[in-house]
Amino acid sequence: MNPRSPRPLAATPAATAVLAMVLTEGPLSRVDLARRLGISSAAVTKAARPFLDDGYLHELDSERTAPGAGRPVSPLAITPDREFVVGMKATADEVIGVVCDLKARIRASAHRSLPDCDPATVVTTLAALVDELLDADPGMRAKTRLMGLAVSGDVDRAGGLVRLSPLLGWERVDLAGPVGAATGLAVVVENDVKALTVAEHWFGEGVGTDDFTLVTVGAGIGCGIVTGGRLLSGAYGVAGEVGHVCVDASGPVCHCGARGCVEAFAATEAILGRAREVTGRDDLTLSQAAELARSGSAPVRALFSEAGTAIGLGITAIVNLVGPERIVVSGEGLDSHDLFETEIRQAYATHAFGAAARCPLTIRPLPFEEWARGAAAVGIQTLFAPARR
Amino acid sequence: MNPRSPRPLAATPAATAVLAMVLTEGPLSRVDLARRLGISSAAVTKAARPFLDDGYLHELDSERTAPGAGRPVSPLAITPDREFVVGMKATADEVIGVVCDLKARIRASAHRSLPDCDPATVVTTLAALVDELLDADPGMRAKTRLMGLAVSGDVDRAGGLVRLSPLLGWERVDLAGPVGAATGLAVVVENDVKALTVAEHWFGEGVGTDDFTLVTVGAGIGCGIVTGGRLLSGAYGVAGEVGHVCVDASGPVCHCGARGCVEAFAATEAILGRAREVTGRDDLTLSQAAELARSGSAPVRALFSEAGTAIGLGITAIVNLVGPERIVVSGEGLDSHDLFETEIRQAYATHAFGAAARCPLTIRPLPFEEWARGAAAVGIQTLFAPARR
Repeated sequence: MNPRSPRPLAATPAATAVLAMVLTEGPLSRVDLARRLGISSAAVTKAARPFLDDGYLHELDSERTAPGAGRPVSPLAITPDREFVVGMKATADEVIGVVCDLKARIRASAHRSLPDCDPATVVTTLAALVDELLDADPGMRAKTRLMGLAVSGDVDRAGGLVRLSPLLGWERVDLAGPVGAATGLAVVVENDVKALTVAEHWFGEGVGTDDFTLVTVGAGIGCGIVTGGRLLSGAYGVAGEVGHVCVDASGPVCHCGARGCVEAFAATEAILGRAREVTGRDDLTLSQAAELARSGSAPVRALFSEAGTAIGLGITAIVNLVGPERIVVSGEGLDSHDLFETEIRQAYATHAFGAAARCPLTIRPLPFEEWARGAAAVGIQTLFAPARR
Repeated sequence: MNPRSPRPLAATPAATAVLAMVLTEGPLSRVDLARRLGISSAAVTKAARPFLDDGYLHELDSERTAPGAGRPVSPLAITPDREFVVGMKATADEVIGVVCDLKARIRASAHRSLPDCDPATVVTTLAALVDELLDADPGMRAKTRLMGLAVSGDVDRAGGLVRLSPLLGWERVDLAGPVGAATGLAVVVENDVKALTVAEHWFGEGVGTDDFTLVTVGAGIGCGIVTGGRLLSGAYGVAGEVGHVCVDASGPVCHCGARGCVEAFAATEAILGRAREVTGRDDLTLSQAAELARSGSAPVRALFSEAGTAIGLGITAIVNLVGPERIVVSGEGLDSHDLFETEIRQAYATHAFGAAARCPLTIRPLPFEEWARGAAAVGIQTLFAPARR
C-alpha cells in the first residue's frame, strides 16, 4: 500500500453505503436511504451524524420538499465544496489537470506540454501544474489534499505504481511516492480507461446501475466493464481489452501481432496507416483523412466505415457475453463520430443477440478535460468507498 | 417465488459461508475456516454447531491430521450421504436423471425417451424417472427431498418457469409447480449451461476461484461466466452468448439471422449443413462427417478446422474482455474434439492479449450424465448458498 494513500471518510459499511448513495444519487431523505439500503432509519441517522458534523453532508431545507407529505423531511445532500480533488492525466506529450469538487464538477483546468516522458520530468511538470491550478485560489488549496492520476497502461493502483506503459515507455515506475512528495498531496494512480469508467459509473450515465460499460475510441480501443458493481480487472491483470477482440481472422495485422483485432481496423494509427496506403500520401494526417472521407473519397470513407463496423462488433461481443445495462462509447477518436456512428449502430443492431439489443448505446465525443476528470473521480472514489476486491 | 422452493440449510451469512467452504474446499479445521473467512474461531464453532448436530457436518478423527502440530485438531467435513439430490435434464427427445450425494457425486442414473415435448408428457416422464431412480433404494428415497431440473433456453429460476425454450418449443411453461406436485420433491429449474457452470464452479475446476468460465459446444455454443463469485445473467436476461459473438462479418449466415457468429461455424447443425453441401450427400450424419474428416477428406476436415477456430476466437473474446482465472470447454460436440482442439488452442494462443493467455484452457468431452449432474448441483447450491443477486 502506498504510504500516502488517502484514508476513506467512512469507517463502517453502513456509513460507506450512506455516503456513496447520497453522493451518486442524492439528495435523499433518511427514510429513503434506509429503504434503499435495507437498514434502519436509526442506522442511517447514526451513520450520517459525523459527516453532518464535519461538513461533508448538509440537510436541505425542509421547505424545499414536496408539500402535504406529512412531517417535513430534510433530505441529506453532499456539500460539494467541502473538499476539492485534483485530477491529472499524463500523456506522452502533455499533462492535463483539473480541480473538481466532490461531485466531480470541474472547477479549474490547465495543461502543460511535456518536453520528454522521463518520469522525473513528468513529476516536476505535474507539481508545477498543481501549483498553477491551486495558487489562483488559496481557499481551494486549503481544502485540497488528494490527487487522482491517470495514465494509459498496466497500473497497480494499490501500489501506486505503473507496471507497464508502452505509450510512455515506462516499466515499473513508482508514481504515487514521488508525485506525493513533490505536491504534498495524497496520490492515487489508476489506468486512464478505468478512471474514465469510474467517473461515468459514479457521476454520469452509469449512476444507479451495477452493470455498466464504457468504451473508449482513440489511439487505442479500450473499455471498462462493471459487473455486480465491481470494475473487472482480470485474474491475470487483463480485462476490457475490446481492442483485441478478433472480428475477422483474415483481417489486417494488429500492432499486437494478431490479425483482425478491432484496433487493427479502428485505432487512430490503423486508420491513418491504411488511409496513407490508399491515397499514396505518406504525410496525410487523421483530420485530412477525415476531410477526404467527408468530401467524397470512397476508398477513405470505406476505411472509416470498416472502423465503425469493427468497433460495433467489439461492443456487441461485450453485450452478448456480459449483458450490461448501459454502454457509453466515447474518446477523442469520436471527434470524427459522424464517420463512425452509423456503422457502429448498424453492427450492434445486426449482431446483438435477442434482448441484449435493448441495452442503450450512447455515442459521444470526449471533451478535452474528461480524462483528467476521470482521475479526479478515482480520487473521490477513494474518499467515499474503498475499491472492492 | 416458487412455493415449493427449498429452504437453505443455513440462516446466517457466517453459517452459509462456513457450510459452503467446507462443501467445496473441505475438510477444513475451524482455525483454517476462521482465517479464510475472516471471522473468529468462536464464530465458526457457533456456525457449525447446528450442522454437526443434525448430521450435515462431522468431525474427522484427529489422528488423521499431521502429527507434531500441537493440540490435535478435528477438521470439519461434509457428510455426503446426509441427503441426496435428484438432477434431471430434459432435452427434446429424452430425459436424463441422476441422484447425487451432497458432494455432487453420481450415485444412480437412468434415462427415458420422450414421445413428444408436450409439457405434460415431460412432467409425467420426469415423475416416472424419479420413481425408477429412488424405488431401488428406500434409504436413498427417505433422504431425498429436492430436485434440480435443467433445460435449454431462457429460464426464470426464482419463478420456476421456462420463459422460452426454442429447442423444446416452449413459451412460459411453469415447470417447478407441476413437477413438484407429481414427484413430491421441491424443484429448482435452471438453464442447462448455467447449471453445468454451477457444477464445475462448485465441484470441478472452478473450485477456489471467483472468476471462472465454462463453455459448452454442441447443438449450440453457450457459456456461463462467473465474475466476483456471481454467475452473470445480463441486465436484459442475455449473457454468456459466446455462440453469437461475431468472428467474421462476411461469414456464413447464422440461425439468428446475423453473419459469422461462432454458431454459424461451429454448432452441430452448422457443421452438418456445410458438410452436406460440400459432399453433396443430403443424408450425411455428423459422425459420418467426422469420419470423412478423419479419413482425409480435405474440404470436410477444413469445416471442422474453421469450427475450432471460431470457437477459439469466441473464447478469446471472453478472456480479453472478462479475464477469468480458468476456462473449461466441454459439451457433446467435443466427442469429435480431436477435430477441434488444435484449432481452438491455436486461435486462443494467437489472439489472447498479453497475460490473458496465461488463463488455462481445459478441453474435454462431456459424459452423458453431466448435464443432469449440473441440475443436481443447482439443487445442492440452493441448500448451501442461496443465489446472490
